[in-house]
Amino acid sequence: MSEPTLLVLSADPPPRLGALTGRARVRWADEDSLAAELPSADVLLVWDFTSEAVRRAWPGDGPRPGWVHTPSAGVDRLLCPELAASATVVTNARGIFERPIAEYVAALVLAMAKDLPRTLDRQREHRWHHRETRPVEGTRAVVVGAGPIGREIAAVLRALGVTCAVTGRTARRGVHGEEDLDPLVARADWVVCAAPLTESTRGMFDARRLALMQPSARFVNVGRGPLVVAADLAAALRDRVIEAAALDVFESEPLTPDSPLWDVPGLIVSPHMSGDTVGWRDRLGEQFVAMYELWAAGKPLPNVVDKKRGYVPMHDHSPD
Amino acid sequence: MSEPTLLVLSADPPPRLGALTGRARVRWADEDSLAAELPSADVLLVWDFTSEAVRRAWPGDGPRPGWVHTPSAGVDRLLCPELAASATVVTNARGIFERPIAEYVAALVLAMAKDLPRTLDRQREHRWHHRETRPVEGTRAVVVGAGPIGREIAAVLRALGVTCAVTGRTARRGVHGEEDLDPLVARADWVVCAAPLTESTRGMFDARRLALMQPSARFVNVGRGPLVVAADLAAALRDRVIEAAALDVFESEPLTPDSPLWDVPGLIVSPHMSGDTVGWRDRLGEQFVAMYELWAAGKPLPNVVDKKRGYVPMHDHSPD
Repeated sequence: MSEPTLLVLSADPPPRLGALTGRARVRWADEDSLAAELPSADVLLVWDFTSEAVRRAWPGDGPRPGWVHTPSAGVDRLLCPELAASATVVTNARGIFERPIAEYVAALVLAMAKDLPRTLDRQREHRWHHRETRPVEGTRAVVVGAGPIGREIAAVLRALGVTCAVTGRTARRGVHGEEDLDPLVARADWVVCAAPLTESTRGMFDARRLALMQPSARFVNVGRGPLVVAADLAAALRDRVIEAAALDVFESEPLTPDSPLWDVPGLIVSPHMSGDTVGWRDRLGEQFVAMYELWAAGKPLPNVVDKKRGYVPMHDHSPD
Repeated sequence: MSEPTLLVLSADPPPRLGALTGRARVRWADEDSLAAELPSADVLLVWDFTSEAVRRAWPGDGPRPGWVHTPSAGVDRLLCPELAASATVVTNARGIFERPIAEYVAALVLAMAKDLPRTLDRQREHRWHHRETRPVEGTRAVVVGAGPIGREIAAVLRALGVTCAVTGRTARRGVHGEEDLDPLVARADWVVCAAPLTESTRGMFDARRLALMQPSARFVNVGRGPLVVAADLAAALRDRVIEAAALDVFESEPLTPDSPLWDVPGLIVSPHMSGDTVGWRDRLGEQFVAMYELWAAGKPLPNVVDKKRGYVPMHDHSPD
């Protein structure tokens, strides 16, 4: 039997793939050649996970890979109706980004509580300006998104003494349903968005929902840009509807230099880096190699995305 | 019996002291009038705890108060040899600043791990600049200072998954002695200084000790400015001996606009605010009132400073 064909969508070779030498015939595609290469691939590794090329190329003619892996948590850039309806298994990088993102959220929460951005502004001005800061222990957060990332964010915030509610699509043990979201947002000191981007979550933080927040509350988005109506958030900050916010993700990335978001008062803008700690590409490569070995041995794959829901479902008996 | 005389060194009335109406004859002093008022005072409340006026006025003639309270953690600005040698009881504000300072240190550690200052710089430049950040979980810290503030810092860092050693003057349960400091500093990712300022700790972080640190390590001082030789720290940062640092305290405060420290690369300068969360003055006033009630009832005072050592000693059986 010949080696399976592994098609990699990437400009540069991912780390660790050398481990598959002799066990996979590796072919490379870029956004332009992807459509032509797809029919001959058994497995597609979407190493360039920010690309939307798969969504464009997938509906074409010919056979399709039986397994598609994306080394990211979200699969929103990948899924098209044809892929969702197919028998192809889609997997994600669950397990890699949870802790880094949770620490990043904790960094933003603490920095906002302790007014660090203003401290750095005053430092540039050589100005000694003593202020009172906020406690973090004893405050209340709502984390929107009950997947492993949302749960890890809640765990880290709880370790800092924050009372933390987690919301998902439906209520289950330890998770509030959608119907609790508005009242939780209204009571929270911190609203942290870590939801998957699906048709039902797109634009969920709009002017109406932001207006429910306390004037002293702060908003953080580490999920996907389109979860938030950015213009509504900018208006809420300019009008002091809420005090501060931090965005790590945007509708269109990279954010262009002429975006008005860079200059919104009270807004921290960061370049979609919350999950990317030193060595993250190595860990993603190792994870794929381990999953490839399971696949080649005919064993079940972990991290299988529910293509109708648009994320890897959590189960109450899950160890996460 | 007439009411005791409570002398308050302060330009403005502290909050909560109204609770002592009828139980204390309150007199006010400023730095100039303090010497003349001291002989008639039973109790001295050094509300303006940044003042060094007590140290100057204390050695004068006449009777002295039997109790001096400072609403701060450190007593370095207060103690002079004459006060140290006297029968006067000195108390501090133990219990108020621990958690705020520990959260502030966590904010600095996370901000440095996640490269937040550079993110804010890039935001001002409208520049999307993705970088890899550092994990915090699994890193190593040494907290210098085994009092309640140092211990709370260690507790909060441990809650974030940091392996944390605490050093004090002498080894005891859970605390390393001075002899372990250098090897711990050499292995640490984070060196956090929260020691009291005494003759034996002054200048403890000089060029020699900073040079022991790993090039990737970061230094934080929330204790007192003179614990660190600031010129040595600035040189260590400019020469990339260490990667980054944060100072909340300085030899002379407020830092003047012409201080070279404002512009040291990789240094975060903040205006001695780590312990000052909203309501801190109220809490300090309430704490003094509660202590005054004990004193007036002839009961033992908590938070009594060991005037020879220069801090409130910790005991292994202490609940802290």
